Amino acid sequence: MEEALWAELQKAAGKENASRQLIDLVFYSYDASDHFGRPQAAAWATDTEQVSRILKWAHKHGVPVIPRGAGTSLSGMTVPARGGVVLDMSRMNRILALRVPDRLVILEPGVVYTDLQRVLAPKGFFFPPDPASGSVCTIGGNVATNAGGIRGAKYGVTQDYVLGLEVVLADGSIMHTGSKCMKSVSGYELTKLFVGSEGTLGVVTGITLKIAPLPRHTVTASMAFEHLADAGRAVSRIVQAGIVPCVMEILDSICVKILRRQSDLDVPDAEALLLLETDGRTLEEATKEMDRALVLTNECGGGGHLRKARSLEEAASLWQARRALGGIITRLRPSFAVEDVTVPISRVPELESVR
Amino acid sequence: MEEALWAELQKAAGKENASRQLIDLVFYSYDASDHFGRPQAAAWATDTEQVSRILKWAHKHGVPVIPRGAGTSLSGMTVPARGGVVLDMSRMNRILALRVPDRLVILEPGVVYTDLQRVLAPKGFFFPPDPASGSVCTIGGNVATNAGGIRGAKYGVTQDYVLGLEVVLADGSIMHTGSKCMKSVSGYELTKLFVGSEGTLGVVTGITLKIAPLPRHTVTASMAFEHLADAGRAVSRIVQAGIVPCVMEILDSICVKILRRQSDLDVPDAEALLLLETDGRTLEEATKEMDRALVLTNECGGGGHLRKARSLEEAASLWQARRALGGIITRLRPSFAVEDVTVPISRVPELESVR
Repeated sequence: MEEALWAELQKAAGKENASRQLIDLVFYSYDASDHFGRPQAAAWATDTEQVSRILKWAHKHGVPVIPRGAGTSLSGMTVPARGGVVLDMSRMNRILALRVPDRLVILEPGVVYTDLQRVLAPKGFFFPPDPASGSVCTIGGNVATNAGGIRGAKYGVTQDYVLGLEVVLADGSIMHTGSKCMKSVSGYELTKLFVGSEGTLGVVTGITLKIAPLPRHTVTASMAFEHLADAGRAVSRIVQAGIVPCVMEILDSICVKILRRQSDLDVPDAEALLLLETDGRTLEEATKEMDRALVLTNECGGGGHLRKARSLEEAASLWQARRALGGIITRLRPSFAVEDVTVPISRVPELESVR
Repeated sequence: MEEALWAELQKAAGKENASRQLIDLVFYSYDASDHFGRPQAAAWATDTEQVSRILKWAHKHGVPVIPRGAGTSLSGMTVPARGGVVLDMSRMNRILALRVPDRLVILEPGVVYTDLQRVLAPKGFFFPPDPASGSVCTIGGNVATNAGGIRGAKYGVTQDYVLGLEVVLADGSIMHTGSKCMKSVSGYELTKLFVGSEGTLGVVTGITLKIAPLPRHTVTASMAFEHLADAGRAVSRIVQAGIVPCVMEILDSICVKILRRQSDLDVPDAEALLLLETDGRTLEEATKEMDRALVLTNECGGGGHLRKARSLEEAASLWQARRALGGIITRLRPSFAVEDVTVPISRVPELESVR
């Protein structure tokens, strides 16, 4: 980067918030994926006006800007493709307002996922999306990637909870979308257009999230199947019966083998493992729903190694297995490629043939 | 409309699907609002290719096209502002596929709301948005206006259920958005950009909707308050307690007076009426949730005329009162203006001062 350009960036970002030191450039060349690309400079976002100044500078000089949260992306989303400035949002990490009576929270993009949950839980609320990287990833990253997670089947994805955004556009102009109301259908739905746009439409500097009442009781079960297709059929049957588990995940034999080999978790040796979780306002409600589901999975041949967890602690060990997978498979690369595909629910049984 | 233009439109739409007869032009000059504006021609959509031809024609000649469902709009959305062609979508009214195991239904925009529900109910599913004009309005209209309804507090609005769209753009090109999967976060969220865009971005010719399991049990209550602000406070308390009723509506004294004067419903004379409905997979679940809510509303001074309905039939008479309001108030115009405002939940108590 030319000296004149660099001097201007320092002025826009603040001297202490910009760097071209090698250690920073190397750090910002990676995320959790295989990809690599070195930026020309790094900058740390401090507030909306500063982000606006940085983008105005970049716009004027045609410099790419790559916004970044915790860098947990598995697909290189925060890795510079052709130099430019990595804009680290993680220092903008304040929760600005928690308004429980309005069912919303207003925060900066750098707030870490678990930090938000820690603030919401004592009030009896939570932010339902549940990315596997929750302990480190930022809410801004969740918004940029429209993060889902294992509770998506019941609770949806990040966009279902974003009521409004503050966004700095490429030319540095500041835009506000959405509202602070639970229901607002005026004008074009620009909020959700920005959610999942991965920084390509602008840099998110403020987020208003809808929060949901924390389910008071959950029941969890895992069951083994001799055939993967049977696990798929069980999922179809459950959906068709109008049962909406908050988690419904199939682990195929490759995942099961990896878990058995690479972790000390008590995982049965099976062609497929189906993980289910139901929740409710009462334990009876969650149990009843699970029992309905178990009748159907048994009919499909599942249940050999049924484990049913009724407490959050018991359930945690089950999800520990699921969450461990991403990291373990990543360590096994390049032997395994991590893909993230979606199919209609009824086509799940056919996934076996794709394998 | 010039003869040459008209001849071309007839060719694009099909002779039997276009009209410039006075009776049609007058019919399409109105919707359920006060607004009025006569089109130069009317056309009836029959299929996607035909809609594409009509829009290509309009694009070439700079003729405005106003898509229209059942015309139940209360704000003139389907009334021509400067001539052009009203494109009536109501004949494209086929349900193309109901895929219960995939939790979705694929349909044309002219399907009437209640006709869809009638097909879904026997399967144990429903389309949760609940517009007051449900008995006549079309799903295409619901999509175009992002319709909500009285269950919005729990079940959200139309956009929460639109998985994908087929849209004919202004130049006649045909575009497909979204997917047939419950969870799909690839690419920009264009589906929801079209939902609520009121025909300004294109004409919706195909809709894929997510469907939800029909709640098996509902409990309904209405309670009177001496002060409107107390009803507002009760709403805040309920939300804060993490209770999510599927319906939570305040009727102020004006609405209560109108209902008492204009209908034969048994409505108590009160400053405010709060309507609540909870639902669940069991009657106990719905009742428990309502009982929790009633403790809070009692603390806020509500309950003088508490009526609790435990069956769908009993509840129906309550909602009959609510649904009747729109029609009654419309008949009272111009003395009353119908406005549709949204405020953060915590500001509901202050609505009294606005009145």
